[in-house]
Amino acid sequence: MTEIDPRALRNAFGAFMTGVTVVTTHDQDGNPLGFTANSFTSVSLDPPLVLVCLANSSRNYDAFYQADGFAVNVLAEDQKEVSNTFARPVEDRFAAVNWQKGPHGAPVFDGVSAWFDCATFNRVEAGDHLILIGEVKAFENATHPGLGYARGAYVTPAAEAEALSRGSTLKVSALIAHEGKVLLSGDDKGQLVLPEVKVGKGGATAALKQLIAASGVIAEPGFIYAVYEDDACETQHITFLCQASGGTPSSGIFTELSESTLMSVADPAVCTMLSRFAEESRMGDFGVYYGNQVSGEVRPLTKGD
Amino acid sequence: MTEIDPRALRNAFGAFMTGVTVVTTHDQDGNPLGFTANSFTSVSLDPPLVLVCLANSSRNYDAFYQADGFAVNVLAEDQKEVSNTFARPVEDRFAAVNWQKGPHGAPVFDGVSAWFDCATFNRVEAGDHLILIGEVKAFENATHPGLGYARGAYVTPAAEAEALSRGSTLKVSALIAHEGKVLLSGDDKGQLVLPEVKVGKGGATAALKQLIAASGVIAEPGFIYAVYEDDACETQHITFLCQASGGTPSSGIFTELSESTLMSVADPAVCTMLSRFAEESRMGDFGVYYGNQVSGEVRPLTKGD
Repeated sequence: MTEIDPRALRNAFGAFMTGVTVVTTHDQDGNPLGFTANSFTSVSLDPPLVLVCLANSSRNYDAFYQADGFAVNVLAEDQKEVSNTFARPVEDRFAAVNWQKGPHGAPVFDGVSAWFDCATFNRVEAGDHLILIGEVKAFENATHPGLGYARGAYVTPAAEAEALSRGSTLKVSALIAHEGKVLLSGDDKGQLVLPEVKVGKGGATAALKQLIAASGVIAEPGFIYAVYEDDACETQHITFLCQASGGTPSSGIFTELSESTLMSVADPAVCTMLSRFAEESRMGDFGVYYGNQVSGEVRPLTKGD
Repeated sequence: MTEIDPRALRNAFGAFMTGVTVVTTHDQDGNPLGFTANSFTSVSLDPPLVLVCLANSSRNYDAFYQADGFAVNVLAEDQKEVSNTFARPVEDRFAAVNWQKGPHGAPVFDGVSAWFDCATFNRVEAGDHLILIGEVKAFENATHPGLGYARGAYVTPAAEAEALSRGSTLKVSALIAHEGKVLLSGDDKGQLVLPEVKVGKGGATAALKQLIAASGVIAEPGFIYAVYEDDACETQHITFLCQASGGTPSSGIFTELSESTLMSVADPAVCTMLSRFAEESRMGDFGVYYGNQVSGEVRPLTKGD
C-alpha cells in the first residue's frame, strides 16, 4: 500500500460532483453562525436524517458541536456569491442573504433550492472532521436548479445551456490547470492569452480536443468553466476547465495566477475568469470543499508534488 | 413541528446535486458485489476517510457490514449504463464493466472519474441506513468529467454543452412532471407530444418560461434533461425537466407513463426520453437515490397524499 498524498487525494475527492450548502446555527448568545460545505448527504427517511462534515479546525466547531440543532441550506444556481461569502472570513456573513429562523430555530435562507432545519441527532468523530447527523424537523423544497461543484469549480448547467442557446459564432478556450497553475501563452502584443479556437462543424468537444492536442500537454476535456459573450464581435466563448496530468507545453507555460500575471491578461472577461479561478482554487484548498472556515486556525494541507 | 411526509422529503433531498458511485466489495466466497449510490461524501484527509450510506433493507447489507473493506467508484459522464446496471436486479452486474481487484482487494472499475479502495474504518447505524466509513488505502483520479444526479435525473454538463455547440435551429420542450406523471397533450394527428417551442432571440430560458406560462401549471425551469438532434430538420431539441408545484393544465393532462401511453408518442426521440424518465423515476424511488438494491426486500416508501 503506497503512502497517501493528501493533495492528490483532495483532487481525487473533487471528482465526485456535489451541490453546495451553507450550514447554520446560533451560538449561545443567539448570534447566527454559518459556513459553506459540500460534504452533505441525505442518510435516512425513517427517521429523517441528514449529515454534514465539519472540520475539527473550524473556529465554529464548539458552537456546532454544542448546538441542539442546525440547518442545511442547499444553494441555488444563482447563489455563488452566498457560497463565497460563507467560505470567506467576512465580518457579517448573514448580511449577504435574506434569512429567518426556521421552525426548529436555525437560520434558513430565501431563494435556496431547499432547506432542512434539524435537531442534532448524533455526532461522530472521524479523523480531522466531525460528522454531524441531524434529524429533519422541518424542510422546504423549491424548484430552483441547485448550484453544483466539481473539480474545484462551480457547475451551473442551466445557466450554461441558456448562454449557449443564444446562437452566434462560438469559440472554445481551454483553462488547462496543473497544481493550481494555468497554461498561458503570449500573443503578438505581449499579452497573456488562453489557448482558443473557433468551433467548426465538429462541435465544441472536437475543437477542445484539437486545442489540447496542440498544447503538447496530456489533459482531458473537463467541465465548462465559463460561458461569456463578446458583444463587439458577436461571439460566444466557452471555456473548459481541463486538468493536466502530464506532458510538456509546446507553447506557453504553466503560470501562477499572481496579481501581476492577471494584469498582463488583456481580455477583461478572461481576466475576471482567471481571478475567479485563482480565488476558487484557494477556496478549494481551505474553504468550500472541506467546509472549513477560512481563518487563521485552519492548518494548511501538506503540499504534495 | 409538522409531520414529515417521506415522499416530499425524498424530493427535497434530490435538490442537492451529487455524483454517482458504485460501491463494491467481495462476499465471503470471493464473489464481487456492488450497488449504485449517491450518498457518498469525503470526510477527512488525515487519516483519509470517506463515507457512504447503505440501506438496512439492502440484500447485500450483511456482506458490506462484515467486509473488511470496500471500494467507491465515482462514475464518469458516459457511464449512465453502469449506474443503471448496478441499480437494477441484474444477474451478473459485473459483466457490464471492466474491473479488477484494487490494491486493498475490492473491485475497481475502468473508465471512472476516480476510485477509492478502502479499509472499513467505522460503521454507524443511522435510522434506516448504515453509514459505512472507509479509510482510503489506495485511489486513482482520472480526468473524465463525472456523472451528475439531481432532482431524480442524470446531469451531464459536458455532453450537453457539446450538443448545443453544434449550432442549427433550436427548439425547447418542457418535461413537466408531477408525482411521477408527465404533462402530455394530443397533436392534430392524435399523437402525444410535449409542449415545445422554437427558441427566439431571448434564448432557451425565455422560450421555456413562455412554454410554462402557456401550460397553466406552476413550475420552474429546471435542468436540461436531454439534448438531441432531429437530422431530417436540422434542428437541435433541448428538453428541460421541470417540477410542477401546482396549477391546472390549460391543455393536456398529467399522464402516467404506461406502455400504452409511450406507444402513442410519435417522435421516437421523445418516446425514448420518456421511457428513460419512467425508468429513472422508478430508480429514484428505490434505486439510485438511496443506494438501495432494487429487490423484493426493499420496502416501498409511504406514498404521500
